[in-house]
Amino acid sequence: MKKVIIIGGGAAGPKAAAKLSRLNKDIDIHLYTDLDVVSYSACGLPFYIEGLISDIKSLIIRTPEEFEKQGVKIHLNAKCTKINPNDKTVEIFNILTNEHILVSYDVLVIATGARPFIPPINNVDLNNIFTLKTLNDGIKIREKMQKSKKAVIIGGGNISIELLWAFAKNNIEVNVIEKSPHMLNMLDPEMGELVENYILGNFGNIIKIHTNKEASEFIGDNNKNVIAVKLKEGEVIDTDFVVIASGIVPNSEIFKEAGGILSVRDTIKVDTYMQTNLKDVYACGDVVANYNIVSHKPGWIPLASTANKEGRIVALNINGMKESFHGVLSSVVTKFHNLTIASCGLSETYAAQNGFTPISAMVTKKDKAGYMPDAQEITLKLVVDYYSQKLLGAQAIGSGDVHKRIGTVVACIMSDFRVNDLLHLDLPYAPPYSPTIDPLLTVAQIISQKIYNAFKQN
Amino acid sequence: MKKVIIIGGGAAGPKAAAKLSRLNKDIDIHLYTDLDVVSYSACGLPFYIEGLISDIKSLIIRTPEEFEKQGVKIHLNAKCTKINPNDKTVEIFNILTNEHILVSYDVLVIATGARPFIPPINNVDLNNIFTLKTLNDGIKIREKMQKSKKAVIIGGGNISIELLWAFAKNNIEVNVIEKSPHMLNMLDPEMGELVENYILGNFGNIIKIHTNKEASEFIGDNNKNVIAVKLKEGEVIDTDFVVIASGIVPNSEIFKEAGGILSVRDTIKVDTYMQTNLKDVYACGDVVANYNIVSHKPGWIPLASTANKEGRIVALNINGMKESFHGVLSSVVTKFHNLTIASCGLSETYAAQNGFTPISAMVTKKDKAGYMPDAQEITLKLVVDYYSQKLLGAQAIGSGDVHKRIGTVVACIMSDFRVNDLLHLDLPYAPPYSPTIDPLLTVAQIISQKIYNAFKQN
Repeated sequence: MKKVIIIGGGAAGPKAAAKLSRLNKDIDIHLYTDLDVVSYSACGLPFYIEGLISDIKSLIIRTPEEFEKQGVKIHLNAKCTKINPNDKTVEIFNILTNEHILVSYDVLVIATGARPFIPPINNVDLNNIFTLKTLNDGIKIREKMQKSKKAVIIGGGNISIELLWAFAKNNIEVNVIEKSPHMLNMLDPEMGELVENYILGNFGNIIKIHTNKEASEFIGDNNKNVIAVKLKEGEVIDTDFVVIASGIVPNSEIFKEAGGILSVRDTIKVDTYMQTNLKDVYACGDVVANYNIVSHKPGWIPLASTANKEGRIVALNINGMKESFHGVLSSVVTKFHNLTIASCGLSETYAAQNGFTPISAMVTKKDKAGYMPDAQEITLKLVVDYYSQKLLGAQAIGSGDVHKRIGTVVACIMSDFRVNDLLHLDLPYAPPYSPTIDPLLTVAQIISQKIYNAFKQN
Repeated sequence: MKKVIIIGGGAAGPKAAAKLSRLNKDIDIHLYTDLDVVSYSACGLPFYIEGLISDIKSLIIRTPEEFEKQGVKIHLNAKCTKINPNDKTVEIFNILTNEHILVSYDVLVIATGARPFIPPINNVDLNNIFTLKTLNDGIKIREKMQKSKKAVIIGGGNISIELLWAFAKNNIEVNVIEKSPHMLNMLDPEMGELVENYILGNFGNIIKIHTNKEASEFIGDNNKNVIAVKLKEGEVIDTDFVVIASGIVPNSEIFKEAGGILSVRDTIKVDTYMQTNLKDVYACGDVVANYNIVSHKPGWIPLASTANKEGRIVALNINGMKESFHGVLSSVVTKFHNLTIASCGLSETYAAQNGFTPISAMVTKKDKAGYMPDAQEITLKLVVDYYSQKLLGAQAIGSGDVHKRIGTVVACIMSDFRVNDLLHLDLPYAPPYSPTIDPLLTVAQIISQKIYNAFKQN
């Protein structure tokens, strides 16, 4: 019986295991994870901390028992410490019993994910300095938050945005420290600024955003509890606890040590079938590099949605179905209070720096017919390559429905749309859902006109 | 100075006028309408009747004064009675003054729209039998509704769905008479049934749906006020008023009389540039036939969103820019209470009857991560052509966000997607917006698997 070993229990590994077990009952599937839980939604943690989700167990998508019923053997608290690609074995360390065992495989799937990046800040080992990755992290942060008045978040990305709202909603005074000029660096500066304006305009009483700033030191009391964060620029910010959300690093070390070839930012390099350079070794999920469909370059956009797609592809390929993964568009969405922030493809900034000649437009419009009482504003920016007239990316923020507009642009970019093709989109219209001319078509029309005018002038 | 005459003041005519006036200041633009208002949103009328919109004037998109400022001359209460294509004139009848005038044109745009279809029912001229087309219709229905307890709606299409809710919300007992087996015949029967189940399950106390039934006679009292509707099947339904929403007919008579060539259901036949067979005569909006991108056949899907696109194309072409209109996908969306019903492309029923070999799947899933407290169910049906594996259509209903899924499918169909392409859509994911695997991808996976299984078996 063919033996498939899957290392990692986040999203990609469990998906590969579940799909493979459905496709083929004659495969012996084992999943090893160093955690005491498999298949949970890390993306749901900010909403648990916020208090929107009361039972953290609801973030568990599938229990070990459910996997066992499907014929997948789950090994918890079991950390893979070494891959031996020549004799096709992995070394597993049992965290509870301290035992080491050697396990053989016919096919190996590396889905070891990523871990929080810890920036070089002094005294990072003080108490009440957290990262957010596991269910236990979520529980600890929520518990500490409920006893606190002040928090500092290091980093201003997607997770920070959601945590920021979780804390603000719970009346915690929050300071965010972001070294870039703006939060959410997948956005162009003017869009990032709109997000900051919304946050400060509505919750400036308890939220402070420190951009272009870096933390240099955590200051503790006699009990080694953090009580303040010192910035490089000198300022000292009092706090009851800290969350470090400064990005992540891929857990690719054991793969590299086994002779595996890495890609950007130490992620694992895979081909379109999700195969690594090591024989019979696949990789998927947050640990692998993603081919970006618009930039035509490898990048790293670790997301649960992508991890699920890749896990499925790995299962199909192990089952001999030769399926390839097309790549990603860097699509992201995040939420602060009533504000949705979504984007896909390339920002204008990135496009200009990477060989494109971007032309863009931005509109602020109602998301529904203007006379509908619940119509909300959305600001939509579309980026197009001037010479090919192809869509490069879109960014949208607003209390209205921006998510659906970005989803539509995703389909258009993946279809190699030119900007004028957008004008023909027969999106379903009724007053509760959009204006007669959707803002997406409006912004496309503006760019189309700009290109036409530029063509006439040059 | 080139003189452009536009006949019709709904959506397409005003759009053509506004766009043309922006493109070229050296054109003399005149718009004639038989109504006392231009450029209003008829689609908003059900929401005015419901009471969601308090001021009917908010449905007016642009006033005659605003048009005049832009250089467009608006002629209200001015009905075009004849087109003389040989000497390039139109005859205009002023409804207020009873005057007839002859107006010359260099280019004529016919945007005469459509009018309600009145089915052959006896005594249709009784009082309190309404159709819904103009602002005045909306005002009259709302006024009558507020003094009534019971209503009958003849016809079970999109408008009926919205009126049904408008009346139910205002505690009016409503009977709907629909001659087909189900309401909303753009849906497959099982989807139509789900809509009816929702309506009757939640509001069965005041709503009755009579499918497979036809009204044969209106019964009046001595004052010629309608008091009941008699069905062909014998039943008599008491009512205080009636709305006939049994479809529409195109106002294409003057065009036909002038030698114009018609298309399906007496709509005006146009080429991709929106030109008719008459020299220098364009047509756009509800009065023209629409090329259906999936069925490759002309059809008739009169919608304000399409009218706007076509009006724009007409303006560009009059200005010499040679732009073509790609066609429509029969995309529609409507709302009853919290339920959204949306569809695009071909239903399975239509596809099977028109030369395709449809294969379909239907899923009911949460629209957001299942653990989010505001996650709502959506039911999504996807229709694919078995041999080409291309997407043919989608239908979705639910209290969750179905509109965005159909919008995404629209972009995919317009890009000639195969069902497997859908599996790669990098839709932006976060728990408040979708499950990690969007229901759209789930239903595509099921069809993909069905096709694979069928391939293995045959």
